[in-house]
Amino acid sequence: MRRYILTVTCPDRTGIVAAVSGFIADHGGWVLEAAQHGDLSTGRFFLRIEVIADTLPFGPDGFRDRFEPVAREFEMTWWLSDTDVRKRVVILVSQEDHCLADLLYRWRSGDLECDIPCVISNHDTLRSLVEWHGIAYHHVQVPGGSAAGAREPGREEAFAEIARLFDEAGGDVMVLARYMQILPAGLCDRYRGRILNIHHSFLPSFAGARPYHQAFERGVKLIGATCHYVTADLDAGPIIEQDIRRIDHSDTVDELLRIGRDIERTVLARGLRWHLEDRVLENGGRTVVFT
Amino acid sequence: MRRYILTVTCPDRTGIVAAVSGFIADHGGWVLEAAQHGDLSTGRFFLRIEVIADTLPFGPDGFRDRFEPVAREFEMTWWLSDTDVRKRVVILVSQEDHCLADLLYRWRSGDLECDIPCVISNHDTLRSLVEWHGIAYHHVQVPGGSAAGAREPGREEAFAEIARLFDEAGGDVMVLARYMQILPAGLCDRYRGRILNIHHSFLPSFAGARPYHQAFERGVKLIGATCHYVTADLDAGPIIEQDIRRIDHSDTVDELLRIGRDIERTVLARGLRWHLEDRVLENGGRTVVFT
Amino acid sequence: MRRYILTVTCPDRTGIVAAVSGFIADHGGWVLEAAQHGDLSTGRFFLRIEVIADTLPFGPDGFRDRFEPVAREFEMTWWLSDTDVRKRVVILVSQEDHCLADLLYRWRSGDLECDIPCVISNHDTLRSLVEWHGIAYHHVQVPGGSAAGAREPGREEAFAEIARLFDEAGGDVMVLARYMQILPAGLCDRYRGRILNIHHSFLPSFAGARPYHQAFERGVKLIGATCHYVTADLDAGPIIEQDIRRIDHSDTVDELLRIGRDIERTVLARGLRWHLEDRVLENGGRTVVFT
Amino acid sequence: MRRYILTVTCPDRTGIVAAVSGFIADHGGWVLEAAQHGDLSTGRFFLRIEVIADTLPFGPDGFRDRFEPVAREFEMTWWLSDTDVRKRVVILVSQEDHCLADLLYRWRSGDLECDIPCVISNHDTLRSLVEWHGIAYHHVQVPGGSAAGAREPGREEAFAEIARLFDEAGGDVMVLARYMQILPAGLCDRYRGRILNIHHSFLPSFAGARPYHQAFERGVKLIGATCHYVTADLDAGPIIEQDIRRIDHSDTVDELLRIGRDIERTVLARGLRWHLEDRVLENGGRTVVFT
Repeated sequence: MRRYILTVTCPDRTGIVAAVSGFIADHGGWVLEAAQHGDLSTGRFFLRIEVIADTLPFGPDGFRDRFEPVAREFEMTWWLSDTDVRKRVVILVSQEDHCLADLLYRWRSGDLECDIPCVISNHDTLRSLVEWHGIAYHHVQVPGGSAAGAREPGREEAFAEIARLFDEAGGDVMVLARYMQILPAGLCDRYRGRILNIHHSFLPSFAGARPYHQAFERGVKLIGATCHYVTADLDAGPIIEQDIRRIDHSDTVDELLRIGRDIERTVLARGLRWHLEDRVLENGGRTVVFT
Repeated sequence: MRRYILTVTCPDRTGIVAAVSGFIADHGGWVLEAAQHGDLSTGRFFLRIEVIADTLPFGPDGFRDRFEPVAREFEMTWWLSDTDVRKRVVILVSQEDHCLADLLYRWRSGDLECDIPCVISNHDTLRSLVEWHGIAYHHVQVPGGSAAGAREPGREEAFAEIARLFDEAGGDVMVLARYMQILPAGLCDRYRGRILNIHHSFLPSFAGARPYHQAFERGVKLIGATCHYVTADLDAGPIIEQDIRRIDHSDTVDELLRIGRDIERTVLARGLRWHLEDRVLENGGRTVVFT
Repeated sequence: MRRYILTVTCPDRTGIVAAVSGFIADHGGWVLEAAQHGDLSTGRFFLRIEVIADTLPFGPDGFRDRFEPVAREFEMTWWLSDTDVRKRVVILVSQEDHCLADLLYRWRSGDLECDIPCVISNHDTLRSLVEWHGIAYHHVQVPGGSAAGAREPGREEAFAEIARLFDEAGGDVMVLARYMQILPAGLCDRYRGRILNIHHSFLPSFAGARPYHQAFERGVKLIGATCHYVTADLDAGPIIEQDIRRIDHSDTVDELLRIGRDIERTVLARGLRWHLEDRVLENGGRTVVFT
Repeated sequence: MRRYILTVTCPDRTGIVAAVSGFIADHGGWVLEAAQHGDLSTGRFFLRIEVIADTLPFGPDGFRDRFEPVAREFEMTWWLSDTDVRKRVVILVSQEDHCLADLLYRWRSGDLECDIPCVISNHDTLRSLVEWHGIAYHHVQVPGGSAAGAREPGREEAFAEIARLFDEAGGDVMVLARYMQILPAGLCDRYRGRILNIHHSFLPSFAGARPYHQAFERGVKLIGATCHYVTADLDAGPIIEQDIRRIDHSDTVDELLRIGRDIERTVLARGLRWHLEDRVLENGGRTVVFT
């Protein structure tokens, strides 16, 4: 069933919901789902409404035109999604395929509603898996390894190429599905709020490299994973979703890696789903997630 | 901060939220929290709105008077709670005190906002604990044990006395905190939607007696507890909340009982809190819980 | 690292561990992992020991020969697995592929250590997925649908064919990965303790058909899945593993199905891993799981 | 049922379990429970065995005498507990009583098997609660607040007084049940492995002050608590147990504090139980927990 999803954030005051729901009701729109949140600490208001498209007498452009005056009155930042227009997800991956394979399965089975125009990797390892799904695979080598080689020659060009491929593919969302490279700040800023990463720890614990090794050393009793928006500030972007599993003293680092793979793929799939359904709104360095 | 909590259920149609939020906005009311749910399988709509009392130009009675025409138009079943009027909770208990002690602690620490005018028990065992909290303790013996003695002479009188004590105390909610007696159907009907029970299993598994023994026999790997509204149909009332804990082969029935006590008190406290905050709306044999 | 896994069950008495660990120590065996359980309710003792193969002066057959006298003394039922001999897993599947795809992924990535000689299905739907993995796919039509057609002509022949294929493939374990047919009692008995099923509910709740619909109707707040050994008594075999996810009133049956798929594949993979590692010992209608 | 609990750690080699279980079997001892762990990363071996006291022909002292040669041969660090000798727990508390009330309830109900000779606090706030349980309450003022006043005059004397009270009470375990003072390093060293703290975050996240405020600011989706042994290195001692609860954007800091109280008391009670049952063995900066 085709739906329009209206997402709004604005300074909190009285009358916002009355205005928006009044607007929809006046045009006969049937609301399937609605959620709101007023953040007392920031004074911001957040709203998400899902309307059955066929109950409105206009299309998405008509909606946008007519809604503009309401939005202006309340100083809204807002957008309207049309579920008939699937978001285009470009996946970046390195050599580990557990997140990629999971996303591809969910996409193939219809569980994740999106298009995946291409996968980009700094290795050629996962080409056959991707191509079996009928998806284009771009191998873009990134010189210099990870953090250490941040100023390596050729690195800038590689990320320019990635940005070009993303734009060419009409990408809406970039998903770092265990992509072991640190994105340049410029790229983070340019696609702010559109790049999702899965970090293999329960942030802010064990930011940086080799989190499972860190977790093992510290002797924690639970390990986790974090799906977050990527910002120029490494591993510090707004958190979308986290989850954990219990471990014990008998689990070696290899066991943590294995258990972690399951958490990572689950958390990333959940975060991406919510992003695709416009359920995630940034609120400073935090997120509002209407689930 | 004093708040009014408006809870509504009515046949689903367009314009409900617009009407209610319009009504509140027109009077300058500041909405702290709002949640809604349209049940596609029953065609019912559910709404809960929390408004800061001071932002409205009228008291609760004024609110009720003015809201009546809106309610009538949409055939609403509705009620308005005033957080300054604390609900009165009467606890029924037998001899096990883990749920009782937990509720009393949460009440004493301000974690559960309610009044507890009295505790009623078919034993005198827990008198000192209750009275230490400055709460009245009524010992009402119920002849005939549990299920078996349903027609025992004196049983009817005992429950009539309990109903009298409940009414005399101005009870809003009756909580069966491991009260090992089956309530007569008449009582269940009379206080429909106002009696909460904690069942010591993950319903519908192991309804009836000795659920932990049943769980042990079946060899399940998780045990749970269920907080539900009491109806004349034993252990089949609408479920408010459930939770589980993992067990393994090394746990004896005694261990299950011990682990279960922790689940029971947590689940009951959570269910009661939500009921006190008007977050639970019955929807046929199910519930809508706005958390 | 090659290991021998010794699994023992016998009547409980003093000296069992001393005898077994003495036997291993006397031959210089290095124990990597050991776990034991004495069941007070049945008087049975359970033991699992993992020994590094290279530390013993004999191979698996030598181990078996020399261990026999110890086993006889304590009336042990026992077996010895050699991790160099991978168990052979035959998967039965119908049309839904979430469990199958997950198992294949885990097998392909080395996460599940086993061989998968073939997949058998009553439909031809999933052939290409299976064959892409280089695994044989057998389409064995089973007349008569599920429960209803238990006496349908041709049904017996179909299951005879399945048993033949299983034996021909040298199957050690049969996994019903959402295989929507009820196995004949004869087959259940013949492969007792070697057939794993994933049931899409938190058993014993919602046994039988359409468990998510039942869960929705009952209004539970958690849904689950159960991995169990198949016995002739439908959905009543010994439980190996269970898990749950939280749901709420806004989840439709379709949402339950989607959430359930994630639980099912996780629980089945976990149960199968433990079975493959000889961590699951039957104890009457229950299991001992050494994790 | 009286039991002896033998706990052992030593360099890993072959024959340890054979020797210990042989020793017990030779004297006719009935093992109720046994667990072991060889840590490949440190080369240490850990063992815990629970024996029914009456099945042995000697008392705890006899056990110790006869076991000494075995222990010496394997360079064991070991101890033997007698469940008839209850451990003595001294609780330190400040003004918040959720952990204290929970521990007292569990002690009173027999759920925690220990003696509680006294409670020590830097405030007089919780005297009546403690004394109602028939437990001595010592008010020892600690000058200078928390971290800031670490060198405040009188502080040293206060902690000397606390140590004196602990020793006078025959304390085995000191529990910091939300005791908001930092213990001097000397005290930490003196009672190494015998002081348990509950930290109100999922360590290593949010060490230090006001963890719930930190968690709110960071926008995490799960909050937790950590029970750990206290060392001179603040919040960095070996972790015994952790747990978490899910939160969302609508939870204010006050909500986090409320939810956190439930996690804290659960995690502390669990950690303390395991410590009392000799289930926790230190392994460098980590722990082995035999549950």
